[in-house]
Amino acid sequence: MPLNPIINLMKTQDIDIVFLNDPKNVFYVSSYRSDPHERILAAVLFKDAKPLLFVPALEENDARNTAKEFDVVSYMDTQDPWSVLATSIKEQLSPLSTWSIEKDFLTVERMEALRMHFPTAIFQHNISDALQQMRLIKNGQELAFMKEAGRWADEALKIGAQTLREGITEMEVVAEIEYQLKKRGVAEMSFTTMVLFGENAASPHGVPGDTKLNKNQFVLFDLGTMHEGYASDVTRTLFFGEEPSEHQKRIYELVLAAHDQAMAAVRPGITAGALDATARTVIADAGYGRYFNHRLGHGLGQGVHEFPSIMEGNEMALIEGMCFSIEPGIYIEGDIGVRIEDCGFVTADGFESFTHSPTGIDAYSRLID
Amino acid sequence: MPLNPIINLMKTQDIDIVFLNDPKNVFYVSSYRSDPHERILAAVLFKDAKPLLFVPALEENDARNTAKEFDVVSYMDTQDPWSVLATSIKEQLSPLSTWSIEKDFLTVERMEALRMHFPTAIFQHNISDALQQMRLIKNGQELAFMKEAGRWADEALKIGAQTLREGITEMEVVAEIEYQLKKRGVAEMSFTTMVLFGENAASPHGVPGDTKLNKNQFVLFDLGTMHEGYASDVTRTLFFGEEPSEHQKRIYELVLAAHDQAMAAVRPGITAGALDATARTVIADAGYGRYFNHRLGHGLGQGVHEFPSIMEGNEMALIEGMCFSIEPGIYIEGDIGVRIEDCGFVTADGFESFTHSPTGIDAYSRLID
Repeated sequence: MPLNPIINLMKTQDIDIVFLNDPKNVFYVSSYRSDPHERILAAVLFKDAKPLLFVPALEENDARNTAKEFDVVSYMDTQDPWSVLATSIKEQLSPLSTWSIEKDFLTVERMEALRMHFPTAIFQHNISDALQQMRLIKNGQELAFMKEAGRWADEALKIGAQTLREGITEMEVVAEIEYQLKKRGVAEMSFTTMVLFGENAASPHGVPGDTKLNKNQFVLFDLGTMHEGYASDVTRTLFFGEEPSEHQKRIYELVLAAHDQAMAAVRPGITAGALDATARTVIADAGYGRYFNHRLGHGLGQGVHEFPSIMEGNEMALIEGMCFSIEPGIYIEGDIGVRIEDCGFVTADGFESFTHSPTGIDAYSRLID
Repeated sequence: MPLNPIINLMKTQDIDIVFLNDPKNVFYVSSYRSDPHERILAAVLFKDAKPLLFVPALEENDARNTAKEFDVVSYMDTQDPWSVLATSIKEQLSPLSTWSIEKDFLTVERMEALRMHFPTAIFQHNISDALQQMRLIKNGQELAFMKEAGRWADEALKIGAQTLREGITEMEVVAEIEYQLKKRGVAEMSFTTMVLFGENAASPHGVPGDTKLNKNQFVLFDLGTMHEGYASDVTRTLFFGEEPSEHQKRIYELVLAAHDQAMAAVRPGITAGALDATARTVIADAGYGRYFNHRLGHGLGQGVHEFPSIMEGNEMALIEGMCFSIEPGIYIEGDIGVRIEDCGFVTADGFESFTHSPTGIDAYSRLID
């Protein structure tokens, strides 16, 4: 249970109360998943009392049915949520209590509301890093969800490849992928599906539009699906046509070599920065270093922008169970964009990918088989 | 230009610098729209100097091309963004400057980073309310975008109605709506499309699944599309079948009466709370008050959860140009759920809706015509 390590940390660091209002952290500790928008959703953990889950009245039943280890407290839209919350908390806590808060999520306004209701409390401690650290190492259940999300991402690539034909637009391909997935019960993508043709793929934040597909172009797919609250994320750049040019082949092979070298270099103990360098060196040595203008990868879990960040300067040593992407790319504006990405997790002696779609300049023909 | 009123406010309130990092506010003041995820995106306004737009290196070109009135400063993933930002700001500012920040968005962590770089500055002023107030009143360009978004929401309802047939699942209807929209170039919905059959609609936060449609059920559609960064949002509950039961008719007519009364009651000067009461009274007087368990409406603009909040206790007087939803509903668990929603804006003497889909117990037959 994720609660126990936090309670232990509270005891060793003399923290009386942990206040979580990042929905991802609330889900992590309580199993209750919700997007409260501007309303307040919070998990409140006490050193010596039953934890509270604080939800809008609309969600009370769902919360009770899910978060079995929590007392559920709810508030109506017409109530001041901070007063309701403060009343519940004060039943368990002395006014001189020491709080730990999510400094990377709690807003200044909410911080001021807490200070107003608990003027003599101490709010110095930051729980964000500890929770990040805990969420960094996925357990078996989480890995199982992410493998399933990865399986659907592979399926999505296959659907995308099978949809390609001359004259189709990027947006039509996106529509077809999401339609087929929804019909098979995949309700949610993990981010906006990206399908970019030819030089459009040179913008790493490009947006699918009404560009039509021509023969002998690259098609970049970057997509992912959600499964039980966990994300997948995969990129393939497929050559659509008869015979790639020497230039296309050279760029593709470079990115693939960088991808493969990084995949092979993962093991417990290597730092995120060193892993980034493994891929970056391949591309830089060939003279394309300045066209690989982003980090090698990002963590993933409940979202696609978690830790660890696989980038230069990050001295964090990788540990078994960490999940992240490996996604080198080369983007030459007005010319060509190629990226190849897999997400996976650190094993006892390497890296296991959640996705298994083919790579190689001929990957397209293998995907439509 | 949105910049001028902020600069005027800075002058009258002796504010030297406004720091905005909510992407919606950054878009509002600079026309540059981006989702920076965990990276920092900020618009920095000075009382007496050219404003700065601070973006990740990847976005530098896009930002320069869009935010013509701003100096663009960018940082690499390998740099400490706060140091880069502080250096640029210090060129324009004395260490004793007075800052205004977005207290409803700025995190405690970012606040601490600013304090570290500007230890003698004063951070008390909150710009959130002023920006909310400005964004509350939409200009002609914004209203034009929202009307177009509304037109597409009407179109989506028509597609949804035409897709209904016995045995189809909720998720299949969602898939078809989004597929048809994407093929016509609508890239983004404003929130997760909701299609709920029969008693599933009794949960106001229900999720479409594999429930199959039967004759003589209600189908609740709640959906919206994005257009140029602005959202639409509409709900219709369609009766699918031959002849509704007396119970179905009664609940539907009540919700419709509440909806129509509220639409007719809008005018400049009425308070949000009084408008909520107009609809709520209709439902409460019929004895169903406790089944209308949410506020009457929410603001909309760049998103569907803006101000004003149309709810009991909100004494804000409505002003011409404010945009919000009117969406009464009755939800009886295990039995029935009906909601009817239109979004629009306050005119000189009433309310103009962005959506025009038919209402009435026979709306389905008119939508499939």
